[in-house]
Amino acid sequence: MDDRICYFNGDYIRESEVRLSLWDTGLIGGGAYEAARTYNHAPYQWKEHIDRLFYSLRSLHIDPGLTPAEVYDITLEVFKRNEKGLEPEDDCIIMYWVSRGAMPNFYARPTRPTVIVYCINLSPVYEIIAKNYQEGIHLVVANTRQMPLQCLDPRIKHTNRLCNNLADFEAKMVDPQAFALVLDIDGFVCEGPRQNVFMVKDRKLLTPKLTHCLGGITRATILELAKELKIECAEEDLTVYDMYNADEIFITATSFTIYPVVKFNERVLEKPFPGAVTKRLFSAFSKKVGVDIVGRVVNYTKAKKELKK
Amino acid sequence: MDDRICYFNGDYIRESEVRLSLWDTGLIGGGAYEAARTYNHAPYQWKEHIDRLFYSLRSLHIDPGLTPAEVYDITLEVFKRNEKGLEPEDDCIIMYWVSRGAMPNFYARPTRPTVIVYCINLSPVYEIIAKNYQEGIHLVVANTRQMPLQCLDPRIKHTNRLCNNLADFEAKMVDPQAFALVLDIDGFVCEGPRQNVFMVKDRKLLTPKLTHCLGGITRATILELAKELKIECAEEDLTVYDMYNADEIFITATSFTIYPVVKFNERVLEKPFPGAVTKRLFSAFSKKVGVDIVGRVVNYTKAKKELKK
Amino acid sequence: MDDRICYFNGDYIRESEVRLSLWDTGLIGGGAYEAARTYNHAPYQWKEHIDRLFYSLRSLHIDPGLTPAEVYDITLEVFKRNEKGLEPEDDCIIMYWVSRGAMPNFYARPTRPTVIVYCINLSPVYEIIAKNYQEGIHLVVANTRQMPLQCLDPRIKHTNRLCNNLADFEAKMVDPQAFALVLDIDGFVCEGPRQNVFMVKDRKLLTPKLTHCLGGITRATILELAKELKIECAEEDLTVYDMYNADEIFITATSFTIYPVVKFNERVLEKPFPGAVTKRLFSAFSKKVGVDIVGRVVNYTKAKKELKK
Amino acid sequence: MDDRICYFNGDYIRESEVRLSLWDTGLIGGGAYEAARTYNHAPYQWKEHIDRLFYSLRSLHIDPGLTPAEVYDITLEVFKRNEKGLEPEDDCIIMYWVSRGAMPNFYARPTRPTVIVYCINLSPVYEIIAKNYQEGIHLVVANTRQMPLQCLDPRIKHTNRLCNNLADFEAKMVDPQAFALVLDIDGFVCEGPRQNVFMVKDRKLLTPKLTHCLGGITRATILELAKELKIECAEEDLTVYDMYNADEIFITATSFTIYPVVKFNERVLEKPFPGAVTKRLFSAFSKKVGVDIVGRVVNYTKAKKELKK
Amino acid sequence: MDDRICYFNGDYIRESEVRLSLWDTGLIGGGAYEAARTYNHAPYQWKEHIDRLFYSLRSLHIDPGLTPAEVYDITLEVFKRNEKGLEPEDDCIIMYWVSRGAMPNFYARPTRPTVIVYCINLSPVYEIIAKNYQEGIHLVVANTRQMPLQCLDPRIKHTNRLCNNLADFEAKMVDPQAFALVLDIDGFVCEGPRQNVFMVKDRKLLTPKLTHCLGGITRATILELAKELKIECAEEDLTVYDMYNADEIFITATSFTIYPVVKFNERVLEKPFPGAVTKRLFSAFSKKVGVDIVGRVVNYTKAKKELKK
Amino acid sequence: MDDRICYFNGDYIRESEVRLSLWDTGLIGGGAYEAARTYNHAPYQWKEHIDRLFYSLRSLHIDPGLTPAEVYDITLEVFKRNEKGLEPEDDCIIMYWVSRGAMPNFYARPTRPTVIVYCINLSPVYEIIAKNYQEGIHLVVANTRQMPLQCLDPRIKHTNRLCNNLADFEAKMVDPQAFALVLDIDGFVCEGPRQNVFMVKDRKLLTPKLTHCLGGITRATILELAKELKIECAEEDLTVYDMYNADEIFITATSFTIYPVVKFNERVLEKPFPGAVTKRLFSAFSKKVGVDIVGRVVNYTKAKKELKK
Repeated sequence: MDDRICYFNGDYIRESEVRLSLWDTGLIGGGAYEAARTYNHAPYQWKEHIDRLFYSLRSLHIDPGLTPAEVYDITLEVFKRNEKGLEPEDDCIIMYWVSRGAMPNFYARPTRPTVIVYCINLSPVYEIIAKNYQEGIHLVVANTRQMPLQCLDPRIKHTNRLCNNLADFEAKMVDPQAFALVLDIDGFVCEGPRQNVFMVKDRKLLTPKLTHCLGGITRATILELAKELKIECAEEDLTVYDMYNADEIFITATSFTIYPVVKFNERVLEKPFPGAVTKRLFSAFSKKVGVDIVGRVVNYTKAKKELKK
Repeated sequence: MDDRICYFNGDYIRESEVRLSLWDTGLIGGGAYEAARTYNHAPYQWKEHIDRLFYSLRSLHIDPGLTPAEVYDITLEVFKRNEKGLEPEDDCIIMYWVSRGAMPNFYARPTRPTVIVYCINLSPVYEIIAKNYQEGIHLVVANTRQMPLQCLDPRIKHTNRLCNNLADFEAKMVDPQAFALVLDIDGFVCEGPRQNVFMVKDRKLLTPKLTHCLGGITRATILELAKELKIECAEEDLTVYDMYNADEIFITATSFTIYPVVKFNERVLEKPFPGAVTKRLFSAFSKKVGVDIVGRVVNYTKAKKELKK
Repeated sequence: MDDRICYFNGDYIRESEVRLSLWDTGLIGGGAYEAARTYNHAPYQWKEHIDRLFYSLRSLHIDPGLTPAEVYDITLEVFKRNEKGLEPEDDCIIMYWVSRGAMPNFYARPTRPTVIVYCINLSPVYEIIAKNYQEGIHLVVANTRQMPLQCLDPRIKHTNRLCNNLADFEAKMVDPQAFALVLDIDGFVCEGPRQNVFMVKDRKLLTPKLTHCLGGITRATILELAKELKIECAEEDLTVYDMYNADEIFITATSFTIYPVVKFNERVLEKPFPGAVTKRLFSAFSKKVGVDIVGRVVNYTKAKKELKK
Repeated sequence: MDDRICYFNGDYIRESEVRLSLWDTGLIGGGAYEAARTYNHAPYQWKEHIDRLFYSLRSLHIDPGLTPAEVYDITLEVFKRNEKGLEPEDDCIIMYWVSRGAMPNFYARPTRPTVIVYCINLSPVYEIIAKNYQEGIHLVVANTRQMPLQCLDPRIKHTNRLCNNLADFEAKMVDPQAFALVLDIDGFVCEGPRQNVFMVKDRKLLTPKLTHCLGGITRATILELAKELKIECAEEDLTVYDMYNADEIFITATSFTIYPVVKFNERVLEKPFPGAVTKRLFSAFSKKVGVDIVGRVVNYTKAKKELKK
Repeated sequence: MDDRICYFNGDYIRESEVRLSLWDTGLIGGGAYEAARTYNHAPYQWKEHIDRLFYSLRSLHIDPGLTPAEVYDITLEVFKRNEKGLEPEDDCIIMYWVSRGAMPNFYARPTRPTVIVYCINLSPVYEIIAKNYQEGIHLVVANTRQMPLQCLDPRIKHTNRLCNNLADFEAKMVDPQAFALVLDIDGFVCEGPRQNVFMVKDRKLLTPKLTHCLGGITRATILELAKELKIECAEEDLTVYDMYNADEIFITATSFTIYPVVKFNERVLEKPFPGAVTKRLFSAFSKKVGVDIVGRVVNYTKAKKELKK
Repeated sequence: MDDRICYFNGDYIRESEVRLSLWDTGLIGGGAYEAARTYNHAPYQWKEHIDRLFYSLRSLHIDPGLTPAEVYDITLEVFKRNEKGLEPEDDCIIMYWVSRGAMPNFYARPTRPTVIVYCINLSPVYEIIAKNYQEGIHLVVANTRQMPLQCLDPRIKHTNRLCNNLADFEAKMVDPQAFALVLDIDGFVCEGPRQNVFMVKDRKLLTPKLTHCLGGITRATILELAKELKIECAEEDLTVYDMYNADEIFITATSFTIYPVVKFNERVLEKPFPGAVTKRLFSAFSKKVGVDIVGRVVNYTKAKKELKK
C-alpha cells in the first residue's frame, strides 16, 4: 500500500520514505485525522473535511501550523502527484493525520506538530464495496459503549478508535461480515465505528443527533438531499427499539456513501431491498456528484471478474 | 532522541531506520504500550510490565505473535545494545508499543501485528526530576473525565491517551508546572495522566481502587512496602474532599517512582514537606532497588550545573 | 371475571378453561401485552394497538406465528363472541398476551409461542371512572425509577411491570387514591404505571418525549387533536419543576381516555377544574369517537345508584 | 412436562389441572419465584431458598399468606407426592411462584396472592448437563444491561426476566450454545441470566459483589467452601478486563452447581480444563452433598446412550 | 452596602436594622431568591422575575404568604424609598430572598416564611462592568458539575449556590478575572454561576436547553430579539466542542445584560470582537429598554476617572 | 429562641443583637455549619466536630481566620455564658455557622468570613425526643436524590440543605411524623436529612460507606462501640432491599444519639422493639457519656407532664 507520494511535514515524499518518530505523541493517540475523497478525479467537499479537521484540532489544542487554505493546496498537490495511477472508473481517498508532534526528550512537550496528507485508490476494494451495495450488510449492536462526551466528544475525529475497534470485534463474533452499531452509555444509538447510521420509518428519515455521533460530511449531505427531495427527516434520540422496527436502515461514509442494511441483529428487514427511500437518496447523491456510484463499482467488479476468467 | 537501537518487527535497527506504515492501525489508537526501566543498569520488574502488556493485548484481542518470555529476551537484547551510552548514575526506560499492524489495503484487516521495543536514557531529564523531588509538584483537578470502563477499562495500558492529554492541558492552564488529577464520570479520584496517586490521612495510606485506575507496577510495590513497614493502607473510593484534607499526597510512576505533592488545587499542604510517610516509603523503595533514587538524581544535576559554570 | 370467551392458542374457549402451563416463559416475564377497546360496540384503533404489539414482539425476538391481519380477525371474533353481554352504554377492553411459550423441559427453549386474546366489559368499573372524571386524581412522584432503555425500552409494552407496581405502591402510601408519576434515572418525568402524562403551561400542551415513555395510542390521538384544535403542543424533557408549575395536568390511557389531575404531590392545582385545555381536548376526543365519554359514564353510575335505592 | 402434582393456592393437584386466571397480576410480572432442589432425594438448603423467597416478597410488598415454615412443609409434601417417579440417580428441582394474585375486576387490586409450588425431575436434561460439565461452556458478554437497583434490586428473585432473556438471545447470536454474561449500566460484571459467575486469578477466587447480582445460594456455598479449603476469595467489582485475563471462570446455579467456562468472548482459556480451583471446589461441593455430581450425570448419560444402541 | 431601606417581613426598615434569626432555615439553604432591576429608574420585567420567584417557591413547597401582585407593590415601594440616591445614569438591582422562616425551637418547623426585598445601586460597579464590555471576558470550564435535576432542578432559583461557588473558584485558579462555565454530570454545557451562556456558529445563535440551566429572563429576551431580528436561533444540547469552535460567545444576566467572551479556555476567539451577532443583539436590547447600555456605563466610568485626576 | 449569648465575628453578644448582612454570601448557601453538644454540662467530642468543620471549610476554600484551638475556646466561652439557664437534666447543642462573609459591593468578593457560634438548650424538645425513643420512628424513602459528589461531596457539612428539605417533605407526605431516607442517584441508601442510618441483619451491624453520607461523629462512635462490644459491623453499599429485610434499623445524630425505627416504608419491623443490638449500642453509648440518655429524657418529660396536671 506504500508507493504513493504523500505530504509529510512540509515535504512531498514516497510513503515508504516517511519516518515517523517513535516519540511522536500521535502514537499514543494524541491527534486527529480526516478522510476526504475525489469524484471523477476532482475534489469533492474538501473544504468541509478540512474545516472539520480544524474543529477537531482546536478542541484538542493542537495548532497544525497551517491554515485551512494551505491544507487545501497541499491536498490538491498530493492528489495531482498521485493522479496518474487512477483508472477512469477509479477515485481516491485522501487521508489527513495530525499530531502534536514528537517529544524532543522523555519529558519535554513536542515543539512542532506532525502533519501528514496521503492518499489511496479506491478501485482495489471495489469488489468488497460492490458486494455490500448488492447484498446489503448485517448490522449488529455491540456491547462496548461509545466514549461519553465529558471524556472525548464524539464529534472530534480523533485517533482514539479503540472503543470502535472493540465494537467491531464484537459484531464480527456474530457474523464475520457484520458491521457494528455502537450505543452510548445511556443506550442510545450513536453510529458505526466509522459510519453514521440512518433509518426510515413510515417514510420518515431518522438519524441520531450530533451529540451522539461524528458530524459526518456524507450524513450532512444526505440530510440536505432529503430536504430537497421533500423526504421528511429528523435528527433524534434513536434506540434499538427503533432499529428493530425500522422499514429501512443504511449506513453512510465518505468512502462508500451508502450501504443498505439487510439484517439487524439477525432480523432480516422487510422487503424490498434496498428500500425505496434508500434508493431515492442514493440516486440523488449519484446525480449530485455526477457519478453512478453503484453502477460504476459493480460494473468495474464485473469487468475485472470477466478478465480473470 | 533517535540514535538508539530498537527492536522493530523482528529486527534490531536504529530508531531512525524504523518505518512505520501510515496504514498501521496503531496510528488510530489500535494498540497497547508499556514502559519498564532498569535500576543500576539491571532489569527491574520487567516480568510484571510484560505480563501487564499481555493483559492489555488480550483485552484488545491483539496477538503479538510472541510469548512473554520472548519479549523478555528482546528487552534484554535491546537494553544490551544501548547499554554503553549509559553513565554510571544513569538508567534507562524501555518502551513497548504493539498494534494490530498495518492494513494491507483500505478495507482489509491487518495480517500481522507491529511490535516495537525501544529505550531511552533517563539522565537527560534528571534536572526536571530533581526539581520535582525537591520542590514537590502542584496537583490540579482536571475537568475532562476518565473514560468509563464500559468504553475502555482504565487498567488496559492502551494508546488512547487523549482524555489524559486534555486533562494535562487543563491543569497546565492553572499552572504550567502542574500535574493533572483525573476524576471518573462519578467524580471519584482516579489517577494522573500517567501516574497513580496516593494520600496519607492520620498516618493511613490511601489510593484509589483498581476499578478507577491503571494497575501501576510502582503502585503495587508501594502497597507492598507499606505492608512491610506496618503502615496501615487501603484501596478506596477517594474523592476531592479526601485530597483537600490529606496530610500528604504523592504520585507514582515507573520513571520517577514518587513525586511528593506540595500544593493541591492551590492549597499548600501542611508542613513538613515531604511528609513522614512519603519519606519512609521512598527510602524503603530506594533500599529495595539498591539506589539512593533522590540522592543520585539530585547529585547528578548539581554536578552538571557545576560543570556548566 | 372469568366467564367470557377468549382466544387461546388457536381455540375460542371460556376463560375458565384456559390452562396456562406453569412452564410458560411468560410467567417469568417473557412477553408482551396490549389493551385495545371498543367505542359504541365497534372496533376503535385496533390496527394501531396490533401494530404496537408487533413492534413489542419484534424487539423481544418473539414470533407470534400470526400476521397482524390474523390478529385483527381474532380480535373481531373474540369481541363478537362476547358482545351480547354488553349494555348499550357499555364497551369492552380487549387484552392481548403473548409469550415465547412453554418450555418442553427444564432446559429446552419453547417451541411455539402462547397467544391469548381476551376481553372484559367496562361498565362494572364505571363508578370508579366517574369519580376520577368528576373529582380528579392526585398524582404523586414515586421513588422507584423507570427501567432505562439499555435494559428494556419503555416503548415496548412488555410484561415486566414490577417497577411500575412499586411506584404505584409508593404513591398509595401517600394517598390510597393516588396515581404514581414515574421518573427515569436522570429524574425526567416519564409516565404513570399504565398512563401517559400531559401538562398545560401558558396554554401550551406538553408531554414527555417517546424516549421516556410508552407510545400511548391515546397519547398520539391527543397530540393530533391538539394540532387540529390549534393548541400549541410539544414533546419535551419535562421535570418535576414543570409539573409543580403546570396550569393543568392530566393522564391518559385507552380505558378511560383522560383523567384530570386535581392535586400534584399534595399541591392543589389552580382553578378551574378541569382546566380549559383539558376540557377542549376531552370534548374533541368524545366527538371523534362519537360518544360523550364522561357523560355516559357519569349518567350510568347515577342511574345504577338510583336503582340501588 | 405437566403430569406432576403441585401445590396451587392450598390444594395439591396435577399441573395440568392448574388454572391460572388471565387476570393474575403475576402474568404482567407482579411476583417472585424460587428454584430449590433435592440431593439424594433429600431436601437441600430449602430453608435458604424459602428465606430468600420471603426477602423477595417483602421487597415487593407481597404477603404470601403463609409462614416460611408452612412453605417448607408444602415443599416437603409436593416433593413426596412426586418422589416415586425419581430414578436413583435422579433428583428434582422445586419451583415456587408467588404473585399478588388475580384482579377481581379490571380496576380492583387482587385480594389474595397466588402461591404455586411445583417440581420436575432433572434426569431428562442430564445429557445437556453432562456435555457442559465435560466440554465447558462459552461465555459471551451481552449488550443488554442489568436493571439498575433503583428500578429493581438484582437481589430480588422477581419474575421480570426480560433483560436476561434479551442478553441470552444476544449471546446465542454469537454461538447457539453460549451463555450470556450481563453487565450493569456502569459496565461491571453482574451475572448470567440465571447463574452467578466466578473467576480465578493467581489462585484467588473472585465473584461480583451482591450489589450487582442475585445472592445465589450456590454462590454462598462456594464462598464458604473456598474458606474451608483456604482458597483466598473476595467479592469485588469485576470487569470484562478481569474476565479476559482470568485463569479460570465458572458459573453456578442450583440446578447444575458449577459449569466451567472454556471460552470467553471467543478467547479459549489457558489449559488445563477445568482449572485446578474449579475442580477442588466442585469436588468439595460433591462431598458436601454426598453425591459425585459430575460422575452421576455423566454415567447416567453414558448408560442411556448405551441403551439406545 | 447597608444604608438602604428594605422590606423585611411586613416592614420597611433600614438594611442595618434587619435582624435575621440565626434559626432561620434560610441560613442552611432553605429558600429561593431573585434579582430584578430598573432601567431609566423604571420597573423592568418585574412581573417575569416575580413569576419566576413564585415558580421556585412552589417547587420548594414554600408559601410566601403574599400574592405576586403584593410582591410587585412591595417592589415598587422599596424602589421608591431608595430612588433618590440614584444618579441619572444609574439604575438599581432589586433583590428578593424568601425562606421557610425561623424555627420556633430546635425541632419545630417554621411557622411563617421570611420575605425580604432589598435593593442596591449599580453605578458603584460600573467600572468593572465597563471593563468587561470593552475587553470581554475569559470563560473557563469548571471541574465541579451542576447539580442534577433529580436533586435540585436548575430552573429553581434557590439559595444553594455552593456548586457554582466552587466552579467560580476553579475558573479563577486559571485566571483571576475568568468566569466559570459549568457542565452537567453528562458533560453538557449548562450556564455560568449566575449567567446564561450563548454562542454563535455560522450566524446561528445557540443556547443550552432549559433542562440544563436557569430560565434567565435576559436569556428569554435575547431569544425574542433574535427572532425579531431574523437571527436563526435554537435551544440545544451544547458541548465544549461547540464552544471551542464557536464564532462568538457571550453570557447574559439581568445586571449587565451581555458580556462578550474574548477567550475560551485560553483560546482567543476569532476577530472582530465583539462579534457581529453579539453586537446586533446588544444594540437591539438597548433600544428595547431605551438606554444605550454600554455607552452609559462606559461614559460614566470615563467621567469618574476624569474627576479623580 | 433568641435570648442567648452567641459569638459573632469576634464579639459575644445576644442572638437578638446579631446583625447578619443581607449581602452575606452565606445567605445564598456559601458556607458550612456544625452542631456539637454537651453531656452533663461538659464538652463532648468538640474536637471532632471542630475538625470536621475545618475539613468542610477547606473543601470550600473558606478560611475562617481562626485556628481549631481558637474555635474550641470560643465554644467554651459561649457555653459558659449560657450555662446558667441549664437545668440539671438538660444539655445544650452548640451550633457553628461560617460563611465566606459579606460582599462589600454588588460585584466584589467578601473580604472577611462570617463566624457564628451559638447554642440552645435541649430540654424544651425532650418531649418529642422521648416519644421517638419510646415509640420509634417511621422511615420513608424519598424521591429526591442526594447531590452526587462531583457537585458537592456529602461529607462536607455545608449549608446547601434543600435536597434534604425536599426529601423531608416527601416523607412527611406519607406520614407527618416520618423521617426521610435519602438515596443517591444510583439508588444506594445514603442517610437521613440530618441523620446517619444503621441496620442490623443476622446480628451484623451495617451502615452506608462514607462515600454516600456525612461522616457523622455519632456514627463513628457507634462503630467504635460495636467493635468494643464484638458486634460484627461493616460499612457497605446498602440498598432498599437491605432495609426491607433488616432485623433492626436505627438512625443517629448528635442531638438524640439513636432513634430506633419501628416502620420502614409502611412495613412494621419484626419484634422486639427496639431490637437487641440497638439496645446494647444505646446502652453502651449512655455508659460512655455517663448519662442514661433515654431515661433522663423520658423521666424529665414525665415529670413535666405531671407538673402540668
